[in-house]
Amino acid sequence: MKPLLLITNDDGIQAKGIRELIHLVAPLGEVWVVAPNGPRSAQSSAITVEIPISAKPMQGVEGATEIACSGTPTDCVKLAIDQLLPRKPDLVISGINHGSNASINVIYSGTMGAAMEGSLHGVPSIGLSLCSHSADADFSKAMPYFLDIIKQTLVSGLPDGVSLNVNAPVGDIAGCRVSKQAHGRWANEFEKHDAPRPLDYYWLIGDFNTLDREDKETDQWALDNGFISIVPIHTDMTHVQTMQKLQSDFKAFIDNP
Amino acid sequence: MKPLLLITNDDGIQAKGIRELIHLVAPLGEVWVVAPNGPRSAQSSAITVEIPISAKPMQGVEGATEIACSGTPTDCVKLAIDQLLPRKPDLVISGINHGSNASINVIYSGTMGAAMEGSLHGVPSIGLSLCSHSADADFSKAMPYFLDIIKQTLVSGLPDGVSLNVNAPVGDIAGCRVSKQAHGRWANEFEKHDAPRPLDYYWLIGDFNTLDREDKETDQWALDNGFISIVPIHTDMTHVQTMQKLQSDFKAFIDNP
Repeated sequence: MKPLLLITNDDGIQAKGIRELIHLVAPLGEVWVVAPNGPRSAQSSAITVEIPISAKPMQGVEGATEIACSGTPTDCVKLAIDQLLPRKPDLVISGINHGSNASINVIYSGTMGAAMEGSLHGVPSIGLSLCSHSADADFSKAMPYFLDIIKQTLVSGLPDGVSLNVNAPVGDIAGCRVSKQAHGRWANEFEKHDAPRPLDYYWLIGDFNTLDREDKETDQWALDNGFISIVPIHTDMTHVQTMQKLQSDFKAFIDNP
Repeated sequence: MKPLLLITNDDGIQAKGIRELIHLVAPLGEVWVVAPNGPRSAQSSAITVEIPISAKPMQGVEGATEIACSGTPTDCVKLAIDQLLPRKPDLVISGINHGSNASINVIYSGTMGAAMEGSLHGVPSIGLSLCSHSADADFSKAMPYFLDIIKQTLVSGLPDGVSLNVNAPVGDIAGCRVSKQAHGRWANEFEKHDAPRPLDYYWLIGDFNTLDREDKETDQWALDNGFISIVPIHTDMTHVQTMQKLQSDFKAFIDNP
């Protein structure tokens, strides 16, 4: 049986990035696209709990089954696996995102929220991003590398609960590096505007600063030096090293044995 | 100078959980509340990028400054620290959430998205939750424990980038345990309904299953046995153990030294 590939994204089912991804993977298996019916950038792992979500079949790329969903990227993966797909997918691919999801941006990313959701369902999952927010971004130079990563992941699999955060620089590509998430921080995050009524409003802007710029093992270093970064990520947020400190700091009211 | 405490949540500034939290911490310092102007459950670390957000002063608890924001919980923390507060806060407290954020629910939680955002700004941050979705939930039994945790964190601090995911069971409390995040999975996630037009729609429901129920070190075990769980979490999602495997699996196209 051909592998079943579930494709989603956070820029919406009509975005250039997902259209090019569908064409790229169409020869590899049975392709199902369940993606948001419009932009859902920076939705992280948000899910829709107060209203229902809808699913609407679309005319799409020949050979692929495409469904537009009113929910978030994470909703799309949940709905596809629980209700829409004929069987559990062999691979979830989210993207290609228009914009970087390297460093701490992984936590805000709807693209990566969808990939993490795939991994939580026990499916090897990959999020793909290009470091350009242009709606007409040129994905061509990254495509052969993305295809290598996808094909090899279909062969090798991933450990249970692990997904890949793959980011490509714009322009010529020096190669691929397995990386760790860079430590970064946003600053100057809002621009204040006047409203025509007594109310303040603010646009999110911001300057991203890498805090470990010299560390060649990070995804941000890879991107800054022309490499595609591949970061294996998981959803166990526990900071194990701090557990001991807490047992000491909180000893007056802690009941661990 | 008295410590500055930033309070937020994801159930909205009028929810019972945040109202009780404000009263609890009012004696501890200078209290600023910047919280969503309505429910934002399950918003994860979502941020608002396509429209501006507004901030509106509210009449609130005496001695506290309260501002209702049109954005997500994470937006609230960003806006407070970047624009609204007189100085960097000494502590961010998010909650008290109406509902559990234990196990993998941490990744969907707007309460915990806000706490993580505080930690990304270098501020010790705590997310507090009670395992009851009732709008009129009884927080009274958990309150003395929450107060201990807050006061001690003000004294001891937390490592840079670390926040606390604190969950309390309903009813009598056996004590507190420092825990790790339980491994869990949602199943049967949607209920399909008929629409009055040719469209399928779905409500998110689901059954939560703990996959490591016998592991006494997990937050879910603590809650199931009447304890408050305290899990230190961080936002570096890298699964370091898989980096080596990828360098081997992907060796045909990887350029790590």
